[in-house]
Amino acid sequence: MQLLLSYIAQYLPLQQHEEELISQLFKKQLFKKGDFFLEEEKVCTKLGFIGQGIMRYYMTKDGEEKTFAFSRENEFVCFYQSFLSANKSSASIQALEDCIVYVISRDDLQRFYEQVSGADKFGRLSIEQVFVQTIKDLYSLYFDSPIERYQKLVNERGDLLQRIPQYHIASYLGVKPQSLSRIRKRIAAPGIS
Amino acid sequence: MQLLLSYIAQYLPLQQHEEELISQLFKKQLFKKGDFFLEEEKVCTKLGFIGQGIMRYYMTKDGEEKTFAFSRENEFVCFYQSFLSANKSSASIQALEDCIVYVISRDDLQRFYEQVSGADKFGRLSIEQVFVQTIKDLYSLYFDSPIERYQKLVNERGDLLQRIPQYHIASYLGVKPQSLSRIRKRIAAPGIS
Repeated sequence: MQLLLSYIAQYLPLQQHEEELISQLFKKQLFKKGDFFLEEEKVCTKLGFIGQGIMRYYMTKDGEEKTFAFSRENEFVCFYQSFLSANKSSASIQALEDCIVYVISRDDLQRFYEQVSGADKFGRLSIEQVFVQTIKDLYSLYFDSPIERYQKLVNERGDLLQRIPQYHIASYLGVKPQSLSRIRKRIAAPGIS
Repeated sequence: MQLLLSYIAQYLPLQQHEEELISQLFKKQLFKKGDFFLEEEKVCTKLGFIGQGIMRYYMTKDGEEKTFAFSRENEFVCFYQSFLSANKSSASIQALEDCIVYVISRDDLQRFYEQVSGADKFGRLSIEQVFVQTIKDLYSLYFDSPIERYQKLVNERGDLLQRIPQYHIASYLGVKPQSLSRIRKRIAAPGIS
């Protein structure tokens, strides 16, 4: 919970009673490895802040799971397209490790906005940040080659590589698992990395 | 300008002096057909509200322009990934018709947030809306077939079809212009549309 309070405090100074309210509104929830934070075709009714663990986002296309994003400690987990619009989700979010998540419902998030002074500013700034990251991820999905995607993953989220199974990384790059080692070799070769 | 004030007033009631401030902060600008609102490799330093006309968003990949979005009257125009992060833009935005746009700089937008009461809430809500739409567009780019993309364009933004040159629509669908008429026929066939 302290992680979340520190995260919010970067954006707005919190009074003691506001910290208490936040601690009540965000409820600690455990997700065992393999549990779903969100399942396809359901509405995403909650926003989570990850205290520990990694979550994987994927969609199913032609019977195949396509991994397109990861969230880990100190980041929010949510499928905003569904959460903000209350439409059914086209994606699933699944725990890749045992996770501790501080979860807030849509209604309680409204209470947060109404009762914490400056919360709208925090909401705007943090959604701006998530927005920029999501757009970056999605453009990369469409415009970057698997090698470019791997290079970015190494540069920007290198610590995740040791924690995520190879076949999920391959799916994230849009290649078969057997192609992944070829890409790793190319990246590791002198003059390229 | 009245369009913009009405748009904002949907989210927050405006005092007279706030309307005046907004009218000063957003500056009317004309873009002739073909003019650029934003060019690739430059930083997007402004946000626009379109009073009249259509703008096209595209990226260049392997020497080819790939159109991925349109904005028209009563909508904002901006490449948020660059605007919010102040990083160079990977996209260009070009006027498809003569356009009237009410433009605000990043600095003036900060003044808007500071001086108009409730503006952060407006900012949060409108960015949420843009976020949902952008994610929808980008997922569609990756996951939908050209036919599905055409069908969605017909259903959701059918009025644009008459105003946008066919080769831009083909690019938006990710097909060659000669394939577009085949798609139109399939959509128009009974039992499909």
